Order: sequence, then C-alpha cells, then structure tokens
Amino acid sequence: MRLRNKPWARSYMDARPHIVELDPRGQKGRWKELFGNDNPLHIEIGTGKGRFITEMAKANPEINYIGIERFESVIVKAVQKAGEEPPPNLRLIEADVKNIEHLFAQNEVDRLYLNFSDPWPKKRHAKRRLTNEWFLKWYALILKDHGEIHFKTDNQGLFEYSIESMTAFGYRLKNISLDLHNSEMTDNIMTEYEEKFSNKGMRIYRLEATLNW
Amino acid sequence: MRLRNKPWARSYMDARPHIVELDPRGQKGRWKELFGNDNPLHIEIGTGKGRFITEMAKANPEINYIGIERFESVIVKAVQKAGEEPPPNLRLIEADVKNIEHLFAQNEVDRLYLNFSDPWPKKRHAKRRLTNEWFLKWYALILKDHGEIHFKTDNQGLFEYSIESMTAFGYRLKNISLDLHNSEMTDNIMTEYEEKFSNKGMRIYRLEATLNW
Ligand SMILES: C[S@@+](CC[C@H](N)C(=O)[O-])C[C@H]1O[C@@H](n2cnc3c(N)ncnc32)[C@H](O)[C@@H]1O
Ligand SMILES: C[S@@+](CC[C@H](N)C(=O)[O-])C[C@H]1O[C@@H](n2cnc3c(N)ncnc32)[C@H](O)[C@@H]1O
Repeated sequence: MRLRNKPWARSYMDARPHIVELDPRGQKGRWKELFGNDNPLHIEIGTGKGRFITEMAKANPEINYIGIERFESVIVKAVQKAGEEPPPNLRLIEADVKNIEHLFAQNEVDRLYLNFSDPWPKKRHAKRRLTNEWFLKWYALILKDHGEIHFKTDNQGLFEYSIESMTAFGYRLKNISLDLHNSEMTDNIMTEYEEKFSNKGMRIYRLEATLNW
Repeated sequence: MRLRNKPWARSYMDARPHIVELDPRGQKGRWKELFGNDNPLHIEIGTGKGRFITEMAKANPEINYIGIERFESVIVKAVQKAGEEPPPNLRLIEADVKNIEHLFAQNEVDRLYLNFSDPWPKKRHAKRRLTNEWFLKWYALILKDHGEIHFKTDNQGLFEYSIESMTAFGYRLKNISLDLHNSEMTDNIMTEYEEKFSNKGMRIYRLEATLNW
C-alpha cells in the first residue's frame, strides 16, 4: 500500500486543518474539546484511503471519528475522499500507531476499528501485527471500560492469531462472523480492501472484542 | 444419527464389560482405579461410532480414554469398532452428557474432546448445544486446572457460537484453525463425520480452550 511520494501532499494537508489534525499529540486527552461536544469517540487504525471512516462519519453524526494512517501518501487520499466539506465529526491523523500513547489519554476512546490490518504472516514479524499483545495493552488502556475493538480481515492466519492473542489477554469475543458477506449483518460499510478481496471471492472474517461485560 | 433400534445391542454390550463400563456412575471419582494407573484421563462427548476415540487410545497407550455416547444403537457400533481385543486404556459409556456430574468428580479429567457436536442451529435450541454456558460450567468443574477442551466441527454457526460462549465464560482459545485440512496440523485423527464433511469440500474448524494459563 506504500504509494509513491506525493510532493504536493504536505501542502494539500496543511491547507486543510479542519479535517487533518496537524498537531495530534497536542490533542491527547482533549479530543472532546476539539469536536466541541461529549459524543463517543471511535477511532480507526490503519485507515488507508479512508472510505470506511468517512462513510461512518456521515452515517453517524452523533459519533466522533478519527482515522489514523502512517503514510502521508496514503492518508492524503483519505483527505481527498473526505471532500471540500468534510463531516464536522471526522478528523484524520498522520501517525504511526506505535505512538498511540501520545495520541489518546486513558479511557478516552469508546471504540477502535481495525480493518484489514497488514497480516505480517512470518512468525518473526508477529510483533508488527496490530493485534499483538503489546498493541492490545495500549488499546485496553485508551479504551473506556465498556470499550470495544471491531476487527475485520480477509486474512485467515491473522484472524486465528488475533482470536488467540485477544483471548490470552482476557478479551471476550462476540458478534463473530467467519463469512461476513454471507451472514445476516446488514449495516456493514465496506473498506477499499474489503471490496477488493470479497470481489476475489475471499471470505471476510469479523469479530468484536471487549474486556468488560 | 439415531439408528434403528438394535435388539441385540444390549446383550452384545453386556457381554463386553472390559470395554463398555456398565455402571459408569459407580466409577465417579475412581476412574484411575478402574484403569489401574495414574495416567491422564481424556474423554470424548458424543463419541458416535467411535473411530476417533479408538484410534486415539491405540496411538497413545499412556493416556486413558473414555467415550460417551447417549444412543445405545450408536455406541454399540463403537464397541464393535474397538474389536475383540480393545485397547486396555479405553472405555465406552452409554450416557447423556447432561448427567455428567454423576460420571466424573471435580478435577478428574485432563482433556475433553467435542467432535462434530450436533449444531442445533435454531436459537431456541441453543441450550442443547454442547458448548453452551451450562455445559461449559460442568466441563470447567470436572477438568483439572490446566485441563483443555478440544473442539472440531464443520458447522460455521456452532463454531462462531462456541467462540462467543467460551470467551464469555473466560476461556482462552489457542491452536485455532479455520481450515484444519489445509493447515499445518499433522497428527489429526479424523472422525466419521469429519471424513464425510471434508469429502464434501466443507471446511473443518478447530480450537482448543483452557481456563488457566
Ligand atoms: C492493508 S491496508 C488496509 C487499509 C484500509 N483499512 C482498508 O481496509 O481498505 C493497511 C493500512 O494500515 C496502515 N498501517 C499499517 N501499520 C500502521 C501503523 N503502525 N500505524 C498506522 N497505520 C498503519 C498501512 O499504511 C495501510 O494503509
Ligand atoms: C453429529 S454426531 C458426531 C459423532 C462423532 N463425534 C463424529 O465426529 O463422527 C454427534 C453425536 O453426539 C451424540 N450426542 C448428542 N448429544 C449428546 C448428549 N447429550 N450426550 C451424549 N451424546 C450425545 C449423538 O448421539 C451423536 O452420536
């Protein structure tokens, strides 16, 4: 997904501070103030080209959304997708989730979306997977008590791994689908990768994880 | 799987007390004495025609096995399969698992196998599923601290349900496979149902669950 460097990307984003948060670390613990309301905060990690988070923000104006993506050349596509009049309840951040502790305070987040995270199939790369123990610890910290992780992937190995790492951490799993596009789920918003993989006939796996119930 | 009544089944089994335990309730808490050793005890619930438990007993003489099946007309097939010289570490029981509290004492069992349990897809039949909360409670009671449940099924809905009910109960899941016959698992012993379903091209799902780690 690494795209060629776009020299115009930086200035394009700098000109759009109403949708790209340029100083996300400065907002840690203060996202409510930035959105100007007390609505729940849902974040997506590895937003990619942004279709999911933009459509979610439009469909649910009473929820605040933040999309986090580490590559400038990718997130700029999400900024374009959000359009010249982006939904007021949406912000995009260029950041690496390994710095998540600098972005959100404890209990600041109500829900965390992981959509089609890079699978890193080699065992020696397991620590890069966004559902490994180290990341789960940080997610648990920034999530509220009844917070949830919603995870979708086409990758069988990553899904198996994630069930193991999440339950090892003490997460309870619910609303599992081992074949989302042939299940009863009605309000699914597709991501770019989801569309690509399901068009190829691959199964989409989905789960929700929560620490408290 | 309910077969036609076999009038000869009762006397066939009564004549084979070295393989069919005729008074299983009398053995509760005393299975070690019956086997005459301190080896681990693995049980299978819903043994069907018995291929799995018989092959497991032959492959692992240092483990004691008990197969539990509720229908006389079915378990008699397992007795036949065990042969005229059945492995000494194997016993078969005709019993309904809903009476499991009368069969095993607390902490008496090291591992519990559920293979292709009836799926009971209708929501109102959920309480008949062998992985519902009520059964999980009994399994937790008879299993040792580091005891495990090993579960295989072709049924997507039952597998999804079981992940949810097990993690809700606090089980950790490991060695998950969402496509067992296309995975690295090498020492898999197939059951009768497993062979039938995988020959039809269905995926086989598998997991291990443990309460302590
Ligand atoms: C396979 S793409 C999926 C994109 C999008 N979620 C979708 O479903 O179409 C994974 C995305 O996650 C981003 N990503 C991977 N690791 C990340 C990290 N540590 N922090 C932030 N984003 C990351 C990648 O740059 C990439 O855009
Ligand atoms: C679908 S068959 C699978 C048989 C075998 N495990 C296999 O994989 O080939 C399920 C079996 O579980 C047995 N069974 C279902 N409910 C049971 C219960 N409550 N107690 C004991 N056996 C039960 C059924 O009689 C049937 O033989």
